[in-house]
Amino acid sequence: MQMRFDGLLGFPGGLVNPSEETLEAGLSRELHEEVGVAVPVGVDDHMSSCVSSSCPRLITHFYIKKMTEAELKEIERAAVASATDHGLEVLGMVRVPLYFLKKGGGLPYFLSHSFISNSRAQLLSALRHCRLLSQGELKEAVRQAEQMRRTHSDDPR
Amino acid sequence: MQMRFDGLLGFPGGLVNPSEETLEAGLSRELHEEVGVAVPVGVDDHMSSCVSSSCPRLITHFYIKKMTEAELKEIERAAVASATDHGLEVLGMVRVPLYFLKKGGGLPYFLSHSFISNSRAQLLSALRHCRLLSQGELKEAVRQAEQMRRTHSDDPR
Repeated sequence: MQMRFDGLLGFPGGLVNPSEETLEAGLSRELHEEVGVAVPVGVDDHMSSCVSSSCPRLITHFYIKKMTEAELKEIERAAVASATDHGLEVLGMVRVPLYFLKKGGGLPYFLSHSFISNSRAQLLSALRHCRLLSQGELKEAVRQAEQMRRTHSDDPR
Repeated sequence: MQMRFDGLLGFPGGLVNPSEETLEAGLSRELHEEVGVAVPVGVDDHMSSCVSSSCPRLITHFYIKKMTEAELKEIERAAVASATDHGLEVLGMVRVPLYFLKKGGGLPYFLSHSFISNSRAQLLSALRHCRLLSQGELKEAVRQAEQMRRTHSDDPR
């Protein structure tokens, strides 16, 4: 995921006007701006679409792209070395910890951060869809994250 | 700052045993592991020291190092390309937004994330010390961040 210009965590992407380009072409364009390399996205990579309650004209479309660790490292390198949005729309790329450490460390702590729109739900649905974590593990991570957020809401760590 | 292995945001650094090396030598060693390039740190860069209430044997020492944007970019590149801790102790580097956008965007949203130990207070003290933001701006950012954290403590974004 990435730290966005507005200080929230989210996925790479952006606004697409479907009268001007296809969703996949728009996403590929945004990815190139934000991660610095071409990441071809097709209709088969589509995962979900969601209408925003606060802005009914906005529909968030979520795509999943599986890649190797070498491809991920290439994106991490390009994102700071050649992406046009680096330091502007994007403040940095981060990996998501898919493990559990003591006292909420790992995924639960990560889920206690502040996310844009429905991106936290998108992350959880992707982890479930790709069977990276079980439903029970995800529920437990969310429970610990919300506890952490409540506990530290007056005195954030 | 960086996304740590435990899912919290924090500064580069690590544990130093003062019977084995000086604080500055230990910090320089940790920085090299985490950002991939040598960042010489001296006693003049020391900013504050703080005894941990939860672990009295632990003292957190905070250092400030001013650098140019070119030096920062070199660190961002090396942190993913050559740092030995990348993908292990460090999940990514992020810049801190030092501005205010609509509805809490920018620094307030950033401050609403989850931070390790006293690193959020260290960030605020550094911004004040370096006169990057005024005391009034910092107070307002903290107020908005805590409001954001309370509002979204049951349903984190």
